[in-house]
Amino acid sequence: MEKANLTQLFSSFDDHWSPKIVAELNGQHVKIAKILGEFVWHHHESEDELFLVHRGRLRIEFRDRTVELKEGDMLVVPRGVEHRPVADEEVELLLFEPAGTLNTGNVSNERTVREPGRFSPTATTGTGS
Amino acid sequence: MEKANLTQLFSSFDDHWSPKIVAELNGQHVKIAKILGEFVWHHHESEDELFLVHRGRLRIEFRDRTVELKEGDMLVVPRGVEHRPVADEEVELLLFEPAGTLNTGNVSNERTVREPGRFSPTATTGTGS
Repeated sequence: MEKANLTQLFSSFDDHWSPKIVAELNGQHVKIAKILGEFVWHHHESEDELFLVHRGRLRIEFRDRTVELKEGDMLVVPRGVEHRPVADEEVELLLFEPAGTLNTGNVSNERTVREPGRFSPTATTGTGS
Repeated sequence: MEKANLTQLFSSFDDHWSPKIVAELNGQHVKIAKILGEFVWHHHESEDELFLVHRGRLRIEFRDRTVELKEGDMLVVPRGVEHRPVADEEVELLLFEPAGTLNTGNVSNERTVREPGRFSPTATTGTGS
């Protein structure tokens, strides 16, 4: 039961489209990711997904509209709804979704991350208490 | 499926210790609350609870130690662990927990909120899209 700081966590990695698990609770994962560019169109068969922007501006494209998210904005994408995140600049993103949710949902390709990284809390907080 | 902005949501109410539901997904709630002062000692029988500080400094007291959280810090309090949040100054707090989680856990008193407020997304975002 260790605290973690979002700014510190985001400063500890540089890779894009590679979600990291930062907390696990009630069968859910809190993940963080840096993203830049266009992702793949996909949906999640049985998982709702919450996006919360920590830094930057993010577009979430749907087949019939686009939602623009800036820092502090959040959006729930319900299960089954096809979407594509697009970041014209680097975005720091927090995700809240069931454990085991695949980043590419129903699509499997080179961007699919089957084993997300996981932060060790003692490593990230830098304290032993 | 409407976006909401944390800063706007927090600016829309003033009451303390009265969590508001701002998102629901996968049987979980995202809630926000403003808190000031000491809460009651309690635990949640079967719910883990994530605290994420949006603004201010929060102490979470446990029977054997205290964890201090500042803006951007998060902490998961596992089910069954007795704790007491204390805010010497006003804190804006984000919570992730299962739908139906009572704020006072195993304790029922005048601070128990059985029906948390719920933000209507269209009302909070001020846009129709």
